[in-house]
Amino acid sequence: MNSFTTDVIVVGAGPCGLFAVFEAGLLKWKCHLVDYLPVVGGQCSEIYPKKPIYDIPGFPQVLAGDLVKNLLEQGKPFHPTFSLGERAESLQKLEDGKFRLTTSRGTEIIGSTVILAGGLGCFEPRKPAIENIVFFEDRGVEYIVRDPEFYRGKKVVIGGGGDSALDWALVLVEIASHVTLVHRSQQFRAAPDSVEKAMKLAENGKLGLITDGQIIALAGSESLERVTVQHNDGRMESVECDNYLPLFGLSPKLGPIAGWGLGIEKNAVTVNPTTYATNVEGIYAIGDICEYPHKLKLILCGFHEAAVALNAEYKRLHPEKKHVLKYTTVTGITEL
Amino acid sequence: MNSFTTDVIVVGAGPCGLFAVFEAGLLKWKCHLVDYLPVVGGQCSEIYPKKPIYDIPGFPQVLAGDLVKNLLEQGKPFHPTFSLGERAESLQKLEDGKFRLTTSRGTEIIGSTVILAGGLGCFEPRKPAIENIVFFEDRGVEYIVRDPEFYRGKKVVIGGGGDSALDWALVLVEIASHVTLVHRSQQFRAAPDSVEKAMKLAENGKLGLITDGQIIALAGSESLERVTVQHNDGRMESVECDNYLPLFGLSPKLGPIAGWGLGIEKNAVTVNPTTYATNVEGIYAIGDICEYPHKLKLILCGFHEAAVALNAEYKRLHPEKKHVLKYTTVTGITEL
Repeated sequence: MNSFTTDVIVVGAGPCGLFAVFEAGLLKWKCHLVDYLPVVGGQCSEIYPKKPIYDIPGFPQVLAGDLVKNLLEQGKPFHPTFSLGERAESLQKLEDGKFRLTTSRGTEIIGSTVILAGGLGCFEPRKPAIENIVFFEDRGVEYIVRDPEFYRGKKVVIGGGGDSALDWALVLVEIASHVTLVHRSQQFRAAPDSVEKAMKLAENGKLGLITDGQIIALAGSESLERVTVQHNDGRMESVECDNYLPLFGLSPKLGPIAGWGLGIEKNAVTVNPTTYATNVEGIYAIGDICEYPHKLKLILCGFHEAAVALNAEYKRLHPEKKHVLKYTTVTGITEL
Repeated sequence: MNSFTTDVIVVGAGPCGLFAVFEAGLLKWKCHLVDYLPVVGGQCSEIYPKKPIYDIPGFPQVLAGDLVKNLLEQGKPFHPTFSLGERAESLQKLEDGKFRLTTSRGTEIIGSTVILAGGLGCFEPRKPAIENIVFFEDRGVEYIVRDPEFYRGKKVVIGGGGDSALDWALVLVEIASHVTLVHRSQQFRAAPDSVEKAMKLAENGKLGLITDGQIIALAGSESLERVTVQHNDGRMESVECDNYLPLFGLSPKLGPIAGWGLGIEKNAVTVNPTTYATNVEGIYAIGDICEYPHKLKLILCGFHEAAVALNAEYKRLHPEKKHVLKYTTVTGITEL
């Protein structure tokens, strides 16, 4: 059985967890990170490594994968350790005030502070109730667009009426040979200008748009060949396609964290809005996993939350010290 | 007289003000920025353009000047307008709920929202009470280190016992031909490891260190040639030098903003810690100019504050709309 002793246990190795390594390092604390995914980077690595992000301050544009690389590099002087491919299962507060985290593989990590940076948790796609959909998974049915290039030249049907369905329709219409968007209503739950763009493309015949139906059957011998759309008036229509993307959202599951005695709301961990502390002293939640009034689920907010949480924890553990915030511009970085 | 109409009036064109342009742009709002400095970038441009910053998330290291360039680039699609070299003088709330800002040059800017991102304000160095110090300003006396290279090969005396004095002593000791640090006490108000480093350098004879005196007189014909140190025991000592840097800190002056009816504390504007709203509806304060519990004066925190303040303002102005936060990863950027 592996066991580690560290200063800060970070649950989640996405961008916020990785930046926590840096902020902890400035306070002379080492971090051990645990992530259920086998690689660092969280959603950035898993869902959209090759998609540019435009809202990281100071980067007019950056690929998610590159951002992750940079964050790893930034934390390097502080030598973080990792348990990847392991889910954080249980957390106990020990008598001396420290925490013991146990993972799905039985690894034990002891630390003084816990930073939950688990993003949306271990999330799963919402699957439509179509009898044989499991058969077609990875044979034409994908719930997540991992690489838009995969769809080059293919006939694609997208199901859903939210941001994900609309935005991917707008992206794939440039790549696939044909895209049909199927939604059961004329009302979309998406950004108005995405809806507007989709409507224009549909008017110009560049996007197939069915707004009164849903896909009820899939067919094909080895792999997907066509889907059946049932219109709201009962009429049936067959649409040929290579791929069907049911983009009805991801259903994030907090997983074991939900059972750790923390305040939970909207499938997230409630925190003090000025310190990001949970209801248990020494445990903080940052990034998409935390919830407080006016919370924005943006990576840049998670960075701030990491800095604030760790500095608040420093004050809690060292109430006697007059804490001097160090400016790296004048002092540089001292390796741990 | 110049006059501008915009959505968001941003007071301060430092990194946080520049990032506010981007966040406002995502909400389809245009910005007009006002800054007392003749260039954008705030302290990054004025005080340390050539110094690397290590704590901007995603940048293991970035020159302050480059960060400013990147932020300008990131805001470009939203076409901000600028009044530089003008101080924000007065602010009135008009009957229709909009604001009118007037600058020191009489420029008028009308907008619905005001974002104060004025950093530490129009700050001035604390000058020691030495009779002829004004004569030697720019003739060997500088209150701010603009470019460390300026001191290459020179004999430098630094006065002060805070972070600024110590950290610059540590930097200049590598560049100048000789550095003497003069402080009236053996107690420093600086990061412990900076103090430790300085002590070691002094022991090895690499840094001159006087910890029981202060500089009371300056002499030289055309420019500074020597300073007189009065030791605490009354003894006088003459130290030859080309430059004297009195680094007793900057005394930030909020300036006219202090008279706008906003809550002020610790020379900063008090804000709601979850929206960064001031006590006047429609006016927000972000970055170093704002104060709330657990506030950290870090650029990365100002970025978060910009995003949160503008999204909170959107909710205030459009209470009826279900606000959908846009993810640039899926939607990209739409030029204004």
